[in-house]
Amino acid sequence: MVRVLVVYDIDDDAKRVKLADRLKGLGLSRIQRSAFAGSLDSQRLRDLYRLCERFTTDPRDVIHVFVLCGYDWSRRRAFGSFREAVEHVVLV
Amino acid sequence: MVRVLVVYDIDDDAKRVKLADRLKGLGLSRIQRSAFAGSLDSQRLRDLYRLCERFTTDPRDVIHVFVLCGYDWSRRRAFGSFREAVEHVVLV
Repeated sequence: MVRVLVVYDIDDDAKRVKLADRLKGLGLSRIQRSAFAGSLDSQRLRDLYRLCERFTTDPRDVIHVFVLCGYDWSRRRAFGSFREAVEHVVLV
Repeated sequence: MVRVLVVYDIDDDAKRVKLADRLKGLGLSRIQRSAFAGSLDSQRLRDLYRLCERFTTDPRDVIHVFVLCGYDWSRRRAFGSFREAVEHVVLV
């Protein structure tokens, strides 16, 4: 299992909602309006990469995926009202 | 120097633009509409954390800061038209 952070800019509203649903479906948790995090096994990580390819065919769209080691994950800092959300992400 | 990733949801348009300007001022580069990355020394990292505190007083606002090791940075994946942007971020 690896910890991932997914950050996206999807222009089309319906497509953005659909992507969020798919990310939830993979077991990731929303930590901001357009960012999800959580743990994935290698199969799910491949599914995630395929999903990202499919959702960025429009030139305005962009998605970044970061795979984070435990140390980097532990030293993340959250500011604002979603501060606690990231603490509840299910991790390895 | 450390590599940082800053992801923000700021509700107010003017405030969001101001934050982007401040992040640029710290030497970070935009990799998505609401995400910046780059390298900071320890003083600038403290400045960044103070900036994030100041910009998230509104309960709708949230900012996450991730400090990334070289390995985690190197295995990031970008999908979409900004694909190259992240390659040009000035790093240690």
